[in-house]
Amino acid sequence: MSIVDYLPPNPIIINVTATAADAIEAMIRRGMGAAAIVDEHGIVAGIFTERDVMTRVALSGRDPHEIPITDVMTTPVVLATRSTSLAEATSVMINYQRRHLPITEDDGRLIGILSIRHVLERKVDELTAQIAASANM
Amino acid sequence: MSIVDYLPPNPIIINVTATAADAIEAMIRRGMGAAAIVDEHGIVAGIFTERDVMTRVALSGRDPHEIPITDVMTTPVVLATRSTSLAEATSVMINYQRRHLPITEDDGRLIGILSIRHVLERKVDELTAQIAASANM
Repeated sequence: MSIVDYLPPNPIIINVTATAADAIEAMIRRGMGAAAIVDEHGIVAGIFTERDVMTRVALSGRDPHEIPITDVMTTPVVLATRSTSLAEATSVMINYQRRHLPITEDDGRLIGILSIRHVLERKVDELTAQIAASANM
Repeated sequence: MSIVDYLPPNPIIINVTATAADAIEAMIRRGMGAAAIVDEHGIVAGIFTERDVMTRVALSGRDPHEIPITDVMTTPVVLATRSTSLAEATSVMINYQRRHLPITEDDGRLIGILSIRHVLERKVDELTAQIAASANM
């Protein structure tokens, strides 16, 4: 199974010219904790998460409608490509303490955002199925 | 194993008289995504998470130093006690779409905050160990 099979559909994609408020509104509307920030070619420039909202926006004293998203996104972004193994991607997330990891094509265009929680949920399901299968052998 | 064994040590505990900024500062300082809000008897009155920072504080136009934490915490809080099973607590978190669940004594005093991510990580470790053990039998 490829890392791409672990990606939730329809990631939130925000342009580098947007404001923090634009990204936060999209994340609230979609009930998601992360957005990929891309340039005009669809190349990933950064990632913005609810952790960034808390650490960089909430107590800044600035109006989020006036904050360029590029001021508060995390960059240079740690990312992985279609050919990265799930184990590698997971260990990158753990080592860099990131809960979200953008997965891109080799040219940097976004495929989706891997979430550690989603990976762990799938892993629990797979291991449980594996145990059930071996019990039936 | 009891649910208490899954609780990370030293939860963030904030008094009901505090402001949103007090809670956010503690969460940033400790690198944690949730705080329990307790009254003067240590009884849990609510929970405040980085999701609440995003949905209730960031775009409110209010200064977090002026927002009573009781205005933006989640309450009535869904909670569990020492005797709740891990399976029950996990299903409560999934059904209510909560990533954090306060665990209390029967009288409502906080023991700790269960995190779905932490539970999933432990579950992966346990299942992996179980598979390794049965492979060695």
